[in-house]
Amino acid sequence: MDETVKEASFENIRLSEDGRSVVIIDQTQLPNRLVRLALNTPRQCYDAIYALKVRGAPAIGIFAGYAMYVLSLPYAGLPYGEFAAKLHETAEYLDSSRPTAVNLSWGLRRMEKVVTDHKSLPVPEIVALLKKECVAIQREDADQCAKISAYGLTLVHDGDGILTHCNAGPLATSRYGTSIGPILLGRERGMQFRVFADETRPLLQGARLTSYELQRAGVDVTLICDDMASIVMKNGWVDACFVGSDRIAANGDVANKIGTSGVAILAGYYGIPFYVLAPTSTVDRACPTGDRIKIELRDPDEIKKKFYREPMALPETKCYNPAFDVTDHTLVSAIVTERGICRAPYGESLAKLFQ
Amino acid sequence: MDETVKEASFENIRLSEDGRSVVIIDQTQLPNRLVRLALNTPRQCYDAIYALKVRGAPAIGIFAGYAMYVLSLPYAGLPYGEFAAKLHETAEYLDSSRPTAVNLSWGLRRMEKVVTDHKSLPVPEIVALLKKECVAIQREDADQCAKISAYGLTLVHDGDGILTHCNAGPLATSRYGTSIGPILLGRERGMQFRVFADETRPLLQGARLTSYELQRAGVDVTLICDDMASIVMKNGWVDACFVGSDRIAANGDVANKIGTSGVAILAGYYGIPFYVLAPTSTVDRACPTGDRIKIELRDPDEIKKKFYREPMALPETKCYNPAFDVTDHTLVSAIVTERGICRAPYGESLAKLFQ
Repeated sequence: MDETVKEASFENIRLSEDGRSVVIIDQTQLPNRLVRLALNTPRQCYDAIYALKVRGAPAIGIFAGYAMYVLSLPYAGLPYGEFAAKLHETAEYLDSSRPTAVNLSWGLRRMEKVVTDHKSLPVPEIVALLKKECVAIQREDADQCAKISAYGLTLVHDGDGILTHCNAGPLATSRYGTSIGPILLGRERGMQFRVFADETRPLLQGARLTSYELQRAGVDVTLICDDMASIVMKNGWVDACFVGSDRIAANGDVANKIGTSGVAILAGYYGIPFYVLAPTSTVDRACPTGDRIKIELRDPDEIKKKFYREPMALPETKCYNPAFDVTDHTLVSAIVTERGICRAPYGESLAKLFQ
Repeated sequence: MDETVKEASFENIRLSEDGRSVVIIDQTQLPNRLVRLALNTPRQCYDAIYALKVRGAPAIGIFAGYAMYVLSLPYAGLPYGEFAAKLHETAEYLDSSRPTAVNLSWGLRRMEKVVTDHKSLPVPEIVALLKKECVAIQREDADQCAKISAYGLTLVHDGDGILTHCNAGPLATSRYGTSIGPILLGRERGMQFRVFADETRPLLQGARLTSYELQRAGVDVTLICDDMASIVMKNGWVDACFVGSDRIAANGDVANKIGTSGVAILAGYYGIPFYVLAPTSTVDRACPTGDRIKIELRDPDEIKKKFYREPMALPETKCYNPAFDVTDHTLVSAIVTERGICRAPYGESLAKLFQ
């Protein structure tokens, strides 16, 4: 793996020393244990995505690349037709692990394209190209994160208070992250921000991952419950909100972790800028508005039981557990991509990214 | 104890059968276990308040009454001077258990007044008056809750969606509760609401207590995380928000459980009425605006550790854990008291309650 990718990253996704497994950090065990898992079967890779051991849209895309390479190795002795069929089957299987993660199918398709684009090559050479491709996906993501971080950093000043929701840091990407990127890049440059991390119920990515990453990087971070964002803003402690995104509609409506739209409304009320940081691959030009974005509903036990010593509500208690919400584009101050900063009207500014 | 108080209540505070202990439901063990505790020493009563075994501003006031009566029994054989001194000492001790709970000192002062107002009576007769007084406090609270519930019920329609934050139901009061009161009263009258209960981090009173109380009463309740209130409102499922209050300033600013101001801002954004339900004793006429209300800060481990199997953030992670926030009066659609419904301008409408 390219050394530049390792720097300032967690090495959250890499090959094992023997090169036959993809090694991930099990994000479900953070912050209590930094456990690495070596995966080399389709079932192990499927479960890692399904159980959120690897999570964060860009990280899932990178993982899809590494998994496809590693899972191609046992088939390297097959004739092309059988090899391609096996890889296609593997891609379909992995794609079914978390249907709403856009980057998963994107990463799988990109790896499959390497196979179909090189029909004439001997299979072992295709396998070598697959290895290059997954490393390239990771390197490109690191590059995009670095650019997003640099653009994002122009929107804040040393000493600013920044509120974040969920996790779009190094663990969720490659290097720096998206929403956390400007903070980490600023820290590298000797700046210091006062970060308020929403814990982000129900899965607590803000508590378990964002506050962990920021502390590790020496950033001044304060963990709060999601229902404390209002008082923190009212206290005058927040100069900007930074969030990531899972899908951005053509009009600038932003799907992101549940609770993001609430943060945007509070920021609007208190007159605080609300910034979305994401690569252009997150912009879904075929999706006109956020109303068209399907919201994934998850297990009620994530609310009632998951992390607790004992259940916090009765077994028969109904729960509503949407994993994402859509923030209206009118609440978004700017969308920060690796190609630059878009402002309203987003229909025009986002379209320009692709010209 | 008056039988009418028992009806539709949890008997959350009552005397033991031998009349020498105050019996409470240990709210920290709900919803998994309905455990009653019999308390008859100052230390036990202090700990019950401090550890939130008894909580909810009105319930703490009622408990203060029962505790003062029960704790007076061992001193019933003393001469008046010594008896009064012992009771004063007990009141001071209990008052130090949770300094910001207004109803605690109010209940203690009211019981002490019985002692000082009847200097000329034999001590055993004063003790008998103390018993009457604590029952009266509870009965008055039940009466106020019933009136608040009836006024609140005029603000909604059968089938409405109602969003609540924290818990101001029967467990936190005597009967019906304040913010939950109209829902329970409506249910008794054959109405059905669709209630969305914010779980209310960090102490989860919405999950552990509100959803428990409402299910027990046959109300259609759906538990959500606090960061899901925005999407629930956006989905068009909420016709009104009902919350309680710990202190209301003369201008209508409302101190209540942390997160309440966020709910009010979201409601304002989505055009949903936001109602505060509380007895007039909650109005602090000496407090001109919410800026003067001191916000209690609590243990960071409530955020990081309390209910969890293992910590959800590193031991060194800084947390900000305010127990309350202040909702600006401009966000409040109405304040519902036992004397009627106040609307803006609150300076005038609240003052009229006391004329």
